[in-house]
Amino acid sequence: MMTDLDTLSINTIRGLCMDAIQAADSGHPGTPLDIAPVAYTLWQRFLRFDPADPIWPNRDRFVLSEGHASALLWSLLHLTGVHAVDPDYEILGRRAVTLDDLRSFRRLDSHCPGHPEYRLTSGVETTTGPLGQGVATSVGMAIAGQWLAARYNRDGFPLFDFDVYALAGDGCMMEGVSSEAASLAGHLRLSKLCWIYDSNRVTIEGHTRITFTEDVAERFLAYGWNVTTVADANDLDAVSRALHSFKAETERPTLVVVHSHIGYGSPVEDTPEAHGAPLGPDGVRAAKRFFGLPEDADFFVPPQVYDWFAEGIGARGDRARAAWEGGLKAYRDAYPQAADELERIQRRELPDDWESALTTFPPDPKGMATRDSSGRVLNALAQAVPWLLGGSADLAPSTKTRLVFDGTGDFQAGDHSGRNLHFGVREHAAAAIANGMAVTKLRPFWSGFLIFSDYARGAIRLSALMEIPVLHIFTHDSIGVGEDGPTHQPVEQLASLRAMPGLLVFRPADANEVVETWRVVAALRHEPAALVLSRQALPTFDRSGFGAASGVAKGAYVLAEAPSGTPDVILLATGSEVALALAARDELAAEGISARVVSMPCWELFDRQPREYRDQVIPPGVTARVAIEQASTLGWDRYIGDGGAVVGMHTFGASAPLKQLLTKFGFTPEGVSQVARERVAAGRGEA
Amino acid sequence: MMTDLDTLSINTIRGLCMDAIQAADSGHPGTPLDIAPVAYTLWQRFLRFDPADPIWPNRDRFVLSEGHASALLWSLLHLTGVHAVDPDYEILGRRAVTLDDLRSFRRLDSHCPGHPEYRLTSGVETTTGPLGQGVATSVGMAIAGQWLAARYNRDGFPLFDFDVYALAGDGCMMEGVSSEAASLAGHLRLSKLCWIYDSNRVTIEGHTRITFTEDVAERFLAYGWNVTTVADANDLDAVSRALHSFKAETERPTLVVVHSHIGYGSPVEDTPEAHGAPLGPDGVRAAKRFFGLPEDADFFVPPQVYDWFAEGIGARGDRARAAWEGGLKAYRDAYPQAADELERIQRRELPDDWESALTTFPPDPKGMATRDSSGRVLNALAQAVPWLLGGSADLAPSTKTRLVFDGTGDFQAGDHSGRNLHFGVREHAAAAIANGMAVTKLRPFWSGFLIFSDYARGAIRLSALMEIPVLHIFTHDSIGVGEDGPTHQPVEQLASLRAMPGLLVFRPADANEVVETWRVVAALRHEPAALVLSRQALPTFDRSGFGAASGVAKGAYVLAEAPSGTPDVILLATGSEVALALAARDELAAEGISARVVSMPCWELFDRQPREYRDQVIPPGVTARVAIEQASTLGWDRYIGDGGAVVGMHTFGASAPLKQLLTKFGFTPEGVSQVARERVAAGRGEA
Repeated sequence: MMTDLDTLSINTIRGLCMDAIQAADSGHPGTPLDIAPVAYTLWQRFLRFDPADPIWPNRDRFVLSEGHASALLWSLLHLTGVHAVDPDYEILGRRAVTLDDLRSFRRLDSHCPGHPEYRLTSGVETTTGPLGQGVATSVGMAIAGQWLAARYNRDGFPLFDFDVYALAGDGCMMEGVSSEAASLAGHLRLSKLCWIYDSNRVTIEGHTRITFTEDVAERFLAYGWNVTTVADANDLDAVSRALHSFKAETERPTLVVVHSHIGYGSPVEDTPEAHGAPLGPDGVRAAKRFFGLPEDADFFVPPQVYDWFAEGIGARGDRARAAWEGGLKAYRDAYPQAADELERIQRRELPDDWESALTTFPPDPKGMATRDSSGRVLNALAQAVPWLLGGSADLAPSTKTRLVFDGTGDFQAGDHSGRNLHFGVREHAAAAIANGMAVTKLRPFWSGFLIFSDYARGAIRLSALMEIPVLHIFTHDSIGVGEDGPTHQPVEQLASLRAMPGLLVFRPADANEVVETWRVVAALRHEPAALVLSRQALPTFDRSGFGAASGVAKGAYVLAEAPSGTPDVILLATGSEVALALAARDELAAEGISARVVSMPCWELFDRQPREYRDQVIPPGVTARVAIEQASTLGWDRYIGDGGAVVGMHTFGASAPLKQLLTKFGFTPEGVSQVARERVAAGRGEA
Repeated sequence: MMTDLDTLSINTIRGLCMDAIQAADSGHPGTPLDIAPVAYTLWQRFLRFDPADPIWPNRDRFVLSEGHASALLWSLLHLTGVHAVDPDYEILGRRAVTLDDLRSFRRLDSHCPGHPEYRLTSGVETTTGPLGQGVATSVGMAIAGQWLAARYNRDGFPLFDFDVYALAGDGCMMEGVSSEAASLAGHLRLSKLCWIYDSNRVTIEGHTRITFTEDVAERFLAYGWNVTTVADANDLDAVSRALHSFKAETERPTLVVVHSHIGYGSPVEDTPEAHGAPLGPDGVRAAKRFFGLPEDADFFVPPQVYDWFAEGIGARGDRARAAWEGGLKAYRDAYPQAADELERIQRRELPDDWESALTTFPPDPKGMATRDSSGRVLNALAQAVPWLLGGSADLAPSTKTRLVFDGTGDFQAGDHSGRNLHFGVREHAAAAIANGMAVTKLRPFWSGFLIFSDYARGAIRLSALMEIPVLHIFTHDSIGVGEDGPTHQPVEQLASLRAMPGLLVFRPADANEVVETWRVVAALRHEPAALVLSRQALPTFDRSGFGAASGVAKGAYVLAEAPSGTPDVILLATGSEVALALAARDELAAEGISARVVSMPCWELFDRQPREYRDQVIPPGVTARVAIEQASTLGWDRYIGDGGAVVGMHTFGASAPLKQLLTKFGFTPEGVSQVARERVAAGRGEA
């Protein structure tokens, strides 16, 4: 039943959205107008969320997957009085979103940016805007919730039983990533997951009848979801009934299909014009008249609306959180170890002794593939860090990321305690799900072949933008894949990942660099990392007289000094090409050319070092430099300078055994030495 | 009904596949063993394909979407005696795939690489291997077929009525791109499209029950497809019935779900081990025994099998092609203009007078967005080139790619003559579909925001790998999108696209550079291009005394010479930053610093110029250089050299009006001048 306060609250939200968009002269009014009643009902009547503690671990999650409707979220956060949280998760004593923030919607330094941004505004559970990402990420949150429950709940202590809601539009439902995620959510029977599909049937190009006529409800039934429909977004009782049906469902995720009218109540209702442009002063005025709002008041909030939210979501959330914290106190007494883990998880800290899991590998000229050494280190670390978990996009036997020690089974519908996820051949969803697990504070990894990082870029980017410590593990990292050929040989992926701000890209050269890579990435709290690993065996270097692998932490280091002590040439390499650089160094030494070998596993960390260190590793005076990497040469010029050259890839590779490819593409000691010789000669003016 | 020759042929295929994989000691035997009977039935009884003319325009298309089963395709191409075609579409007088090619499967320069590669081996309709791409591309082929029929068929001349078949595995069905494509294919009622789903229920990590338990048939019914099932892949009659059901269907695309057993007949049947590793000599021997093949004969082909294929697909294809060519002769007399167009399409040539569609824009300090000028040029060109067609991933009103002249409607289920496609919010499928249209020799474009190129990279990469002239049009190319903020501000996408071999990336600076960009890209025959365009207005330069926009064809050119004639500093820029460089040049001139402005719309073309030209544009003696681009700085070092600097982006941007962002990130004449001043000082040793 709708009360006057319901109506008043919903229309207040609508008014705030229209005013914010009008003030910004930019934004998307159509969706907030159509779906405000649904969001309101969810927040006011269902969402277990304490505005005074928006990071309470057992809160229900709300994801605005149609992120362009951000004004709706900003209005809700304002009206419910959600408190601000600083980027390191400290709750501050002020509102996250003030009326002034709403007034400065979409302006520099406002807490109300154009799309919801994680950590910029508290109450935002994940960054959204690129369509499909929010719903896919919500699956990761639901997985995390189930896993936390399986690991930490005890008889009498249901610490984790939160629900995850995602509000999605037609666009989200068309994107492939949402299909992948929905299929997996159905398979895993994530019954605490609810997607609300705001079916307003209008997108930017027009009515969905021009491109999107499938039966979405039937599709989700095929995925194994519970599906229910609300015929009119303005019918709060119907919305409530649908959400009760979700709450009552214990086997399947739920899709609530809500039929709505984009731009409801405005002059552009049901047209694409309502989507992405302000209504204009006249349009706003007309809509306010329709909603019974005062036409001349901007950012109008009747005081009783604040009270009403405080009595609804506020009081409910406060009670729930208080009860939970009471329970946690007793839990801490009964299960101190588990409670300690939970606190560390919340603070993104690791167990005290985690580094003791890291041991070194003995020198071995035959060595092993870095995917193999990484798999071993991962397994050791995962035993020390119980909330390190993940899986592969159907490539675990190849990427070596399966956790195989005792007590680690599969995360499946029947058993949510497992730490091995089977993402299926769904790379994009895998990465988005990892994002969802990371914003729920777990330490997730996912793995695939480096070539398929392309499929997941949309989600990898969000991990970097959100500054969350997701581990993207990519193996088969070069033409080293050999016979599978150009469709499977990554060439441009390294450069593409390095181009992404905030992502640490590691390409370790041997097993001990792998150990040191894991030492860095395990401790990350606010950065994602990509681990780029070989399919083929690489020697484990004998480091006597060589630089220590701990140099990985500085991004690049002198692995092998020039035999003469004064380099004639510097060989820069990463990953599998470091051993090649060492071989070239030997060959050059035989003819009196003294080459230093620099291993550069992580450009981003190297760029952060003081100039002094960088100049030690790559002395400006040594201009003869050769970079060696089985990848696009883009970006290497920064390190090789005007006198340098790159032995890299300029094509997509070829299908053949690796040895043939190395010769064909010049990755041989002779090939590298020849380029080095030329650089040295050029530096001496002999060229 | 199965004859002995059917059985013998199928098992011969299986034997060839096992032997090729064993000889390579690398490959994927599981799928060829399970699905050989289905592929055989399709080719021998249905496929309208002339081995002697594998590029006959009205041939049925066969796409091996599960590309790892390439040995199956190589065996079929060998047994049917498909003729080789050179990369420029000339038919050669030899077999495309010899027994020796099969013997050198997966070795350097074999015609039988690890995955099917378009243009490397005739009979390969599109490059496959990355899962999902083949099926999505097949939708583009089916669209092209319908469009060709709508435009060129006449009463009594059904020139185009080909079917498109794609063979897909569990992996293809899990990938998001296939969901996007299937939804659109259902919407468009592409009844000449048939996907055969080889449901062997085993992927690399194990049985599909661990991750993929949705009801695929029901999902496709929801998309609006005709769905039929074959309970046993070895039942040729059932396969034939299913394919007849497809042939009889006139309203919907068809999905044939075939239940099969991976590694059928081998010791590893029904296990993941059958997927991606050779069976070993013993395994091959056991399987050959099971199939009644001689155990000791490698690459065994009974002569009657060649004859049998010649009598089946060979004779049927020859008759069909001969009849078609007879018809075309009469058609040419009756419709010379249309026939001429068809010939040009086949040769990838444009109408003689196409360049007359290109006019110049007058100087205009206010100017227009390059998305707008591009939209105008596209519309002019599309009138001159009738087979230039495409659409947007639901952003046409923003990307300005809609064709709006008379006679260009929508391509829809009811009317396949339209040249405007509505791809929906499905970027990945849009790009894959464009690939499919391009391999059918049309000139397709698709458009979206630059940020969403990330979603489509898997398919963009294939356009580059296949060397097909797809036009990827990306607008909203920088922080110029303003208020939508970091989720929508492309920063790393330019570098990512530039890292891709074979893709020409253009970022024109004004309306006349847009014209010249289109002049280059329209004429491309074997390269894809990305057009990177602004949302915001850019001035149309007054070029008196300036370099001509035709310099675009050389990738970079001197737009404005240094006022003194001898540059103290070179300002390098692309797109929207070129006008900024000009403003900085003026500011610097006022203080006696003489700056040359170089516009660099296409790095790839510039890198192809002779050194002499490159040194003219960027003289090695002028080491004070500043690059200006609202993007990741990765890659610029190649042009700025050791003495240079880049004004670029190091974060993901922010949500604010553009003007605020330009100041925040240093994209102002003062900001650029300051950096230039420092570079000049450093060059003079004053720093």
